[in-house]
Amino acid sequence: MPTEVADAYIRGAGMHRFGRWPDKPLREMSTEAVLASLADAGISPSDVDVAYFANSLGGLLVGQEALRGEVCLHDAGIFGIPIINVENACAGGATALWGAIRAVRSGEFRVALAIGAEKMFVGDTQRTLAALQTAADVEATQGQGLQFVALYAMRLEERLASGSFTTQHLAHVTRKGKANGAANPYAQFGTIMTDEEILGARVIAGPLTLPMVAGISDGAAAVIVMGEPDEAGGIKVRASVLSSGTVDGLGEPVVRQTIHRAYEEASIGPSDIDVAEVHDAVSPAELFRYEELGLCPAGEAGTLLESGATSVGGRIPVNPSGGLTARGHPVGATGLAQIVELVWQLRGQAGQRQVAGCRIGIAQNSGGWIDGDTAVGSVHILEGGA
Amino acid sequence: MPTEVADAYIRGAGMHRFGRWPDKPLREMSTEAVLASLADAGISPSDVDVAYFANSLGGLLVGQEALRGEVCLHDAGIFGIPIINVENACAGGATALWGAIRAVRSGEFRVALAIGAEKMFVGDTQRTLAALQTAADVEATQGQGLQFVALYAMRLEERLASGSFTTQHLAHVTRKGKANGAANPYAQFGTIMTDEEILGARVIAGPLTLPMVAGISDGAAAVIVMGEPDEAGGIKVRASVLSSGTVDGLGEPVVRQTIHRAYEEASIGPSDIDVAEVHDAVSPAELFRYEELGLCPAGEAGTLLESGATSVGGRIPVNPSGGLTARGHPVGATGLAQIVELVWQLRGQAGQRQVAGCRIGIAQNSGGWIDGDTAVGSVHILEGGA
Repeated sequence: MPTEVADAYIRGAGMHRFGRWPDKPLREMSTEAVLASLADAGISPSDVDVAYFANSLGGLLVGQEALRGEVCLHDAGIFGIPIINVENACAGGATALWGAIRAVRSGEFRVALAIGAEKMFVGDTQRTLAALQTAADVEATQGQGLQFVALYAMRLEERLASGSFTTQHLAHVTRKGKANGAANPYAQFGTIMTDEEILGARVIAGPLTLPMVAGISDGAAAVIVMGEPDEAGGIKVRASVLSSGTVDGLGEPVVRQTIHRAYEEASIGPSDIDVAEVHDAVSPAELFRYEELGLCPAGEAGTLLESGATSVGGRIPVNPSGGLTARGHPVGATGLAQIVELVWQLRGQAGQRQVAGCRIGIAQNSGGWIDGDTAVGSVHILEGGA
Repeated sequence: MPTEVADAYIRGAGMHRFGRWPDKPLREMSTEAVLASLADAGISPSDVDVAYFANSLGGLLVGQEALRGEVCLHDAGIFGIPIINVENACAGGATALWGAIRAVRSGEFRVALAIGAEKMFVGDTQRTLAALQTAADVEATQGQGLQFVALYAMRLEERLASGSFTTQHLAHVTRKGKANGAANPYAQFGTIMTDEEILGARVIAGPLTLPMVAGISDGAAAVIVMGEPDEAGGIKVRASVLSSGTVDGLGEPVVRQTIHRAYEEASIGPSDIDVAEVHDAVSPAELFRYEELGLCPAGEAGTLLESGATSVGGRIPVNPSGGLTARGHPVGATGLAQIVELVWQLRGQAGQRQVAGCRIGIAQNSGGWIDGDTAVGSVHILEGGA
């Protein structure tokens, strides 16, 4: 890292609501998110100097490989500039943001667009699930694919056996997510559920039941990055970290590594965080994130949850958006939806789910599995009113 | 652009020979190209700080979507760093290089790897051709797909009708490419052919015959980018330009635009170029490139070719590697194979096809079609002995 890193600010944020949108092609959701982010930043399509477009499954699910960004940004008037199509499984959105931040920091570009868009509902669930299994080493897994739900289930069984989690914790964190989703007009799932309903639902991989697992989603999220704050005081990028699985037992797993490096880059610690958006491909994964983020000591995630600290209104609300399992998880868009939520929170625009007086937000996005570790990790720290 | 752009140098270059490699998975070709580029740079896998991995059709043809770089770089010992999977149809390789150059210019990373790898032979030509048609707006073309051969055929028919090209020119430029390929141990096709054989071959789309059209290829190419030259005097990046189709009649088409911007960035003109690698998805496209590069006035490409100026041994050799139609065109790898060839030429390591005393080389890579223009254009200018 150079001694002095140039500033970058999130100047605009926009989303196409996550959900099931059978009549909306990828380009239409992209256009809506881009135009919303441009309007929010008060700029025009022709002001954009470089664009990073994240999508993971367009080739396999909607047949648009190769030129996804050029095709999907065209209707929004984004062309004649460098368009970089990026992909990193469920961390593609964070990868696009990582690129956009660096484009602006370098001074080469004044305005960078980062967008993630995904269309997963294609009328054939098995095809969607098969496509998702490419977020792993397809050759090494011999068609057994991702199995991320099974991996989480195993980790949870261990914690249940050791007594540090109870099934009540798994239900509680899921219920909290769904309730937050119900307060988020951009979320796919907003059902208020009881613990009994959650635990009594169909078992996907014990102890995980259906409402605990991120489903299939369509949607898009976009942000505008620039080198200066706006007059009202912008959302400053305090840290931007991306890495890949450390594998082979070298170093710490990538999720912890990226969190620690982000704290270091921002010169802050866990106690400085006011609001967090974390990657919960299954709701109880949020509990692992509490410990990885250092919001509580190892083994005490359940206790932190029970205390209400991570609910909206608590000391350190986590996933006020509803997280992946309630907001929805259109894989390439998720990393940027986390950022859009933080921008709205840090500006005080989050309505019913607003975290009062928040100033520092953290977004933790990850993706895929390779050789026993998460394949991609990314953490961004934002500061409001900066 | 900032007033002062930091320097970047190509410090290592390596390839897996382009060809038909039914027994070699994408990861194996990637590993070979990466290790060759590292050895050439005299560094280890652990020295690499960031990697850009270009591939276009892995999801559709070999089933590895989402995490192509993480999966394919693992065996070469590249992990625990940011890995950015990029895609831009036939210009993916140049897009990876564009990113790697900026990573180094920023000062954030000391060593950047750019690699392009593609596996197109999958035992089903129709499937490969269908995948290639995603290098266009799939929805707008309604399954008619790319049709790039037909578009080139139409442009060539116009030039033949106007008298500025003859069928002999089309044969000559193809013959020149195949002969260069025959002198390139990394080329897929190295057959010496006569004009009669070329013109008498199967017609693909009149006036284009089979030997004039880039075929199906497997292969990989990789380069190492750093901020300082090596002791022997490095290969300096004098210009790095990427853009997308300007469409809607705004400005000039992207291929010309990127060439002009690259000349401007390098503060040079066409007469300074000693060697060129250009994007000839059909061999006669090289003739269009002569005019776009300003190597001759508009309408005089045929005359320039006839003069022998663009042959190895001539004033300004073009495609000494054989170009796309002889070296082969594994789409995501092509843009970096052009760079590898320029590095070898500028160092005087190109063997039988060496361009004597060359100092400045230009690589022009492009990809896809959208709304009447090339979708992606990229130009890099390198200087040897710098």
